[in-house]
Amino acid sequence: MAQWIWFPCEFEMWLLHRVSLGRRERGRLFPVAWRLEQPYESVRFQCEVELDAPMRASIAVQGDYHAELDGSILWGDFTDVEIPAGRHTVALMVYNGESFPAIFCEDGPLATGEGGWRVTVDYGNYLPAACGAFDCADTPPDRFALCRERIEPVHIERRDGLLLADFGREVMGYPIVQASSPCRATLYYGESEPEACDNAECEHFDHVELAAEETVLPQSRAMRYLAVRGDAGAVEGVALDYEYAPVTESGEFSCPDELLCRIWEVSRYTLRLNTREFLLDGIKRDRWVWMGDVCQSALMSYYTYAEPDAVRRSLVAVRGKEPTTMHINRIVDYSLYWFIGLADYVRYTGDESLISLMYPRIVSLMEFCISCAGEDGFLRGRAQDWVFIDWADIDKDGAVCVEQILFWKSLLVTAEFARRMDDSAYAAPLEARAAALKARIIDTFYDPERHVLYHNLVNGEVRRDIKRHAAIFAVKCGLLEPEELRALAKAVLLNPEVPAITTPYMKLYELEALCEAGERDAVLPYLREYWGGMLALGATTIWEQFDPNEQGEEHYRMYGRKYGRSLCHAWGAGPLYLLGKYYLGVRPTADGYTSYEIAPNRGDLPYIEGAVPVPWGQLRVRLDEHACTVEGCRPGGTLRLKCGAQPVVSGGKLLRFAHGEAVIRLSDAPCCVAF
Amino acid sequence: MAQWIWFPCEFEMWLLHRVSLGRRERGRLFPVAWRLEQPYESVRFQCEVELDAPMRASIAVQGDYHAELDGSILWGDFTDVEIPAGRHTVALMVYNGESFPAIFCEDGPLATGEGGWRVTVDYGNYLPAACGAFDCADTPPDRFALCRERIEPVHIERRDGLLLADFGREVMGYPIVQASSPCRATLYYGESEPEACDNAECEHFDHVELAAEETVLPQSRAMRYLAVRGDAGAVEGVALDYEYAPVTESGEFSCPDELLCRIWEVSRYTLRLNTREFLLDGIKRDRWVWMGDVCQSALMSYYTYAEPDAVRRSLVAVRGKEPTTMHINRIVDYSLYWFIGLADYVRYTGDESLISLMYPRIVSLMEFCISCAGEDGFLRGRAQDWVFIDWADIDKDGAVCVEQILFWKSLLVTAEFARRMDDSAYAAPLEARAAALKARIIDTFYDPERHVLYHNLVNGEVRRDIKRHAAIFAVKCGLLEPEELRALAKAVLLNPEVPAITTPYMKLYELEALCEAGERDAVLPYLREYWGGMLALGATTIWEQFDPNEQGEEHYRMYGRKYGRSLCHAWGAGPLYLLGKYYLGVRPTADGYTSYEIAPNRGDLPYIEGAVPVPWGQLRVRLDEHACTVEGCRPGGTLRLKCGAQPVVSGGKLLRFAHGEAVIRLSDAPCCVAF
Repeated sequence: MAQWIWFPCEFEMWLLHRVSLGRRERGRLFPVAWRLEQPYESVRFQCEVELDAPMRASIAVQGDYHAELDGSILWGDFTDVEIPAGRHTVALMVYNGESFPAIFCEDGPLATGEGGWRVTVDYGNYLPAACGAFDCADTPPDRFALCRERIEPVHIERRDGLLLADFGREVMGYPIVQASSPCRATLYYGESEPEACDNAECEHFDHVELAAEETVLPQSRAMRYLAVRGDAGAVEGVALDYEYAPVTESGEFSCPDELLCRIWEVSRYTLRLNTREFLLDGIKRDRWVWMGDVCQSALMSYYTYAEPDAVRRSLVAVRGKEPTTMHINRIVDYSLYWFIGLADYVRYTGDESLISLMYPRIVSLMEFCISCAGEDGFLRGRAQDWVFIDWADIDKDGAVCVEQILFWKSLLVTAEFARRMDDSAYAAPLEARAAALKARIIDTFYDPERHVLYHNLVNGEVRRDIKRHAAIFAVKCGLLEPEELRALAKAVLLNPEVPAITTPYMKLYELEALCEAGERDAVLPYLREYWGGMLALGATTIWEQFDPNEQGEEHYRMYGRKYGRSLCHAWGAGPLYLLGKYYLGVRPTADGYTSYEIAPNRGDLPYIEGAVPVPWGQLRVRLDEHACTVEGCRPGGTLRLKCGAQPVVSGGKLLRFAHGEAVIRLSDAPCCVAF
Repeated sequence: MAQWIWFPCEFEMWLLHRVSLGRRERGRLFPVAWRLEQPYESVRFQCEVELDAPMRASIAVQGDYHAELDGSILWGDFTDVEIPAGRHTVALMVYNGESFPAIFCEDGPLATGEGGWRVTVDYGNYLPAACGAFDCADTPPDRFALCRERIEPVHIERRDGLLLADFGREVMGYPIVQASSPCRATLYYGESEPEACDNAECEHFDHVELAAEETVLPQSRAMRYLAVRGDAGAVEGVALDYEYAPVTESGEFSCPDELLCRIWEVSRYTLRLNTREFLLDGIKRDRWVWMGDVCQSALMSYYTYAEPDAVRRSLVAVRGKEPTTMHINRIVDYSLYWFIGLADYVRYTGDESLISLMYPRIVSLMEFCISCAGEDGFLRGRAQDWVFIDWADIDKDGAVCVEQILFWKSLLVTAEFARRMDDSAYAAPLEARAAALKARIIDTFYDPERHVLYHNLVNGEVRRDIKRHAAIFAVKCGLLEPEELRALAKAVLLNPEVPAITTPYMKLYELEALCEAGERDAVLPYLREYWGGMLALGATTIWEQFDPNEQGEEHYRMYGRKYGRSLCHAWGAGPLYLLGKYYLGVRPTADGYTSYEIAPNRGDLPYIEGAVPVPWGQLRVRLDEHACTVEGCRPGGTLRLKCGAQPVVSGGKLLRFAHGEAVIRLSDAPCCVAF
């Protein structure tokens, strides 16, 4: 089946460009605070054909163009053109300054899709054309749009000259305003009621000219509350064209603890709102694609949605184009998360094609990172770089241990990408560099007596601060031997004297590290306390930051702005990942779940049950005090269960029972284990 | 005086982008056949100020933006903003998707212009902002436009349902059509009358909707003849908004030979039409900026116009942006001409600022060229490159000698740029590479017995073809000792058995080489025959190619198209350069004519006189059988005259008279030499 084709990555670049220009605050445009990538406007499409007989062909074009047959210009539109028998080169030079060049053809050997056509932007270096889900001449790829559905507010009232609508929970979409006659109005948006009503300090507003009857605004906005100030009496009501990405919510979770269930539900809704063209950080602010956030949202997404489309688009687009003169989002750690995020993507989805697509940009970003490393192999922020790590009071001078762990992990996964691409000439030196870096990290930062990793190295001197961050990533990335990591977790992560993590962002990695280090018991209580704390305050989505000691409108303040905090922030949806991976216990152990493990854990709960998306559908898991059932499994899976005695297994094969753990080989059949 | 500022080179990139999209043939868009460079849409402007007292400031912006003071957002427009006393950072994040971001401020330390503001596109790497001739808030740089002047046709007639206008000579501008009532019409353009009347095969046409009275078309077109086919009777007349660059025609030439004077005049008019936003190759076709053509047009321009603006814009724009993945215009020799053209520019204008502006792109293009060189140091075309050299039947396989001479020269001038930039670490290895390359060229291609340079080296074997091209560039670039070059010129360039040059393009370099090798006598007869041949056929501008053996409409055919040939091609205007440099005899011997030489030669003419543009105005030279006068001179000049006896000098100092040559030091005073 024919598909529209374009220059590789350009669909994603165009979409990111459009999304990047969507941020406005108090009427002012906020382009991204790094290089704004622009789609290529001019692309040459070329196809070689060998015809036994003459053929007629039509090509649909997204853009303005001229065509050539064997180097001679074909005047007119490419509609029902006759191509004589023999060997020919057909080329289209397409310009599109509005979106991006693309073409579509269904005719014989000229059909567009996988293979056949090659593309170039410099008329010298050709690549295979890329294609996607656009398979009809009438729907070119720049018609891409999310879904829409009209929703009504749950409550409307008039107050101080404002019409104030409450949609009952955080939403995003195109405001609809009903007016009795044409008039001017201003729409004020609030994630909280105080924000919508504070016309002087709310983050977003729109001045609009309303028609009589209904006006749909052209720009999607985030809000729970919408206040409209218009000519007296003219504004009669509001609604919303709610906008959302079409995803299949294959992930499920339930248990007898209603609070945990609500936390999972609200997390899912938070991720849902932020899963759009890309994985956004927050739908009110920044509406940008930050790689640190993408890396986490992707993990949550693998446990929630059947489709990884938004993850893939994000990974492609956030990388940007050549020349590579800056880190991704200008943040050192975010370049490193990109490599790690790519590896996660292939592991969960099995879609290796992303590696071959991105391989040149994988290599050039790694070369850029290596060029930023010092003679000691450590990666430091240059004057123009941002070492982010976390919103926390941490020293970022010199060689920060966390960055080195991420760099080491990035070298390893990049070497693995190179091996997949049969580029061992590139893989080998990366592996050597990784090994040397690992040794140097341990030698420099690790104190095996105290079981800690020191934080950073400045001017040749190790600053013996102990923060949680290095320990978190040492566990996450497997820097040390398992028993060393368990000791590290106890000495640092369970040590109340080490300053606590305060963002949901880093908290996700900390809770993950605790689970990996065998300290799951700390997790559920923390979810109930921290996430539950937001729900108790009426949160309908998870916030960017939460401090239980703050009161009232203090919860809305951030970055020196009264309503600066995002109240719908994807990085808060971490329970989706934690509950799926460490309680339902499902994880792939080879790409695309060709092999996988289920090690369910119900913590302090009488039972848990749920489902995790896998390439063939859903894996359903239920664990209670007496039994565990798994449905939707395929060969390649291993079920690991703690049990006091050898269990009774049906639908799977008990491989061994030892040290209180049963290991069961799964098959196509549902498996039930009673103990 | 304040000036609008922008990211370096972006004014030129925007203008080139606009010009590059101006080519249409028979209604189809023809974007450039190499990477289309796009202006950056998003730029951060930043300025640090230290204020003793508070100040108020306004900033005009070309684009949409938000501003920050010390990292905090300044809501609203940047109009009459108060900045408190103290040290502050003011920043504007400007987006412009239509043209390019630029700002203008006249207030105190925030004033825009040279110095002060820095700019970045990736928010990390900052450069000093660039500025140009835009010094008023109301005229931002994207209002840049050429001049216009209404002209009427010299003849109009109706023929076969067409209204056919003749402007008397080649022109370019916006067609104006008068109609008695609104109607549809098609305009057909012709550089020749047959082209305008051949609606089926003419290269350019426009379908237009005419208003009653006058319609001015939005797109500039080249033509001598304009044919309009409209609804019967509705089209009443045509005129033209002639469009031209404002230049001061400081170059002059006259002599008693009327044909030579006409050749000079028509050459000047040809260059004038092609000197627009940039130096174009031809105004009908391609309307593109080809570096090979720019290199020649620039040389002509230095002998014709006071202002080198179009040369400078061309040199900046044609280089393009990073990443450097292709040669300029995809042609190996055109990358090399860029270095040589930059050196010519600095030599003639003294404007060294272009070197510092372009230095990073000089280095990266040279590094790209070096990366394309083989282990033997020779530069070969890769599969995706075009080795052009000339439209001629020449072998382009392997290492072509001409390309090596140009590469050697490019290495030398790039090393000189590096020395100007105090970058001797970069200069030294280039100089060593140049020396090694020169030795290898001579060793490989030069036959000192036959006084020839062989053409190319393929698979380790020298192909012993002899073409004129290598000899031409050996002389132009000074590859060998002067006596060797003279022998080479005699053995190759004056040898009728070596295939003749057939394009005005390469002919310019051949005639230049003959002059440099002391063989000026061949030049004037050739001008009269070749250029005079076009004039005899009624040419009002010089053609892209001319073969005296062709008849009638054969002269219009090229590239397999009936009217494919450009009849107004800048590379035909070489007589401007040849007559100025080798007959008026004026040339700079240091940058910007701080030292210069005048060595006039009247060939077979009783007298010649004329003027050459210099940075301080004009140098006027007259030479007849008995005297030579020079006016407009300044110290630094040397006059060299062939004369049979010691001459009488007034207004200059005779330094020596020997071997029939008088050498006179010029001063501020006019100089008269009688002999």
